[in-house]
Amino acid sequence: MRDEKTTVAELIQLVEEFVAQRDWQKFHDPKNLSASIAIEAAELMEHFQWLRSEEAATVVNDPVASAEIREEVADILAYLLSFAARMKIDLSTALRDKMQKNAAKYPVDQFRGKFKQS
Amino acid sequence: MRDEKTTVAELIQLVEEFVAQRDWQKFHDPKNLSASIAIEAAELMEHFQWLRSEEAATVVNDPVASAEIREEVADILAYLLSFAARMKIDLSTALRDKMQKNAAKYPVDQFRGKFKQS
Amino acid sequence: MRDEKTTVAELIQLVEEFVAQRDWQKFHDPKNLSASIAIEAAELMEHFQWLRSEEAATVVNDPVASAEIREEVADILAYLLSFAARMKIDLSTALRDKMQKNAAKYPVDQFRGKFKQS
Amino acid sequence: MRDEKTTVAELIQLVEEFVAQRDWQKFHDPKNLSASIAIEAAELMEHFQWLRSEEAATVVNDPVASAEIREEVADILAYLLSFAARMKIDLSTALRDKMQKNAAKYPVDQFRGKFKQS
Repeated sequence: MRDEKTTVAELIQLVEEFVAQRDWQKFHDPKNLSASIAIEAAELMEHFQWLRSEEAATVVNDPVASAEIREEVADILAYLLSFAARMKIDLSTALRDKMQKNAAKYPVDQFRGKFKQS
Repeated sequence: MRDEKTTVAELIQLVEEFVAQRDWQKFHDPKNLSASIAIEAAELMEHFQWLRSEEAATVVNDPVASAEIREEVADILAYLLSFAARMKIDLSTALRDKMQKNAAKYPVDQFRGKFKQS
Repeated sequence: MRDEKTTVAELIQLVEEFVAQRDWQKFHDPKNLSASIAIEAAELMEHFQWLRSEEAATVVNDPVASAEIREEVADILAYLLSFAARMKIDLSTALRDKMQKNAAKYPVDQFRGKFKQS
Repeated sequence: MRDEKTTVAELIQLVEEFVAQRDWQKFHDPKNLSASIAIEAAELMEHFQWLRSEEAATVVNDPVASAEIREEVADILAYLLSFAARMKIDLSTALRDKMQKNAAKYPVDQFRGKFKQS
């Protein structure tokens, strides 16, 4: 599996099979899944908790932290895919639609290099 | 774009182009991106804040809430893709590896229908 | 120390001394502290992650979980007090002001027993 | 009300009266309250989302942001007080106990000026 060759639907199937095999759908209501995404996001954030902005990128040089970060990212993704499946959200379409909305909200000529209009 | 036909790499490219066009890479250090995932996850969670477990699934019947939820999901995904790109994490491989680890941690025969061993 | 006899300022002093003794003020900028509150809040949330609404209150019967929850609550409070100290926010005044604002936003006669106007 | 003169119990009473007047105890189960703390913490974090560490403290110079931050802090505190009331946690004792545990975990001579042992 590699991001160049793997479809979003294949990733969703991977997670959904895992959940179905354990009969865990009953725990995976959207309220619990949204909290689960937030919990895993906080665990990811924890790796950068006390680092200053300029130090944050150096985490890649720490193999232990990098391995843990990779797992936290996978956890967030797993719950996000499960949430999308439960709510029948097509992630690719949702992302494209949101990026188009963002593009209209943040025109390149007004927001290049800044996240607020000055 | 549809999840069945869209690769993860295509979604990453969509987000990366948006960021590059605005010269926003400087804001997108891993510390900020991890916080951004958590912020959007909390916004998703907010839609279920006061609902009881059995009410959570009924949100799909509310078109306004559904549309907002779809956007929150897209926001989480966008920051997660940007984080993965910044940290050079192949999401498909990371997810498969984590699901294999989870499968060993939660054997089907011991965890079917429950999330704790009794 | 008991909540009936302890002032907010005494709690702030307790935390501030701990931080000062370790020369940790430099890590406690408001950005890091806000993330720290969120991280500890997620750890608290984790104790209720897979419980249904009606099961959540039963956690008090589990002494191990109760002890951990008590510690997570203390962690959130510690970072919140440190944040308030750093930003020179008087918590008692801020809370009273916000509750007055909330009282105007949610009049008793319109919101009794419900969190949305019907 | 000022932090020097206000007890924790007085703040809890302020919040509990607000909740009781609206008959909102039924929404305030510990699961929902833990999520609510996390949601408000994320809103606080949002004010520092794209700031670099050295810029975070400058937020105090922005009166609009400062006023919003003060309200987010009050929201976190309100839910934390409500959670403590629901779970019968004495916050002052819980905080003192946790700070003593932290003091043993992070001895001054080994952790002065650093959050990790080198």
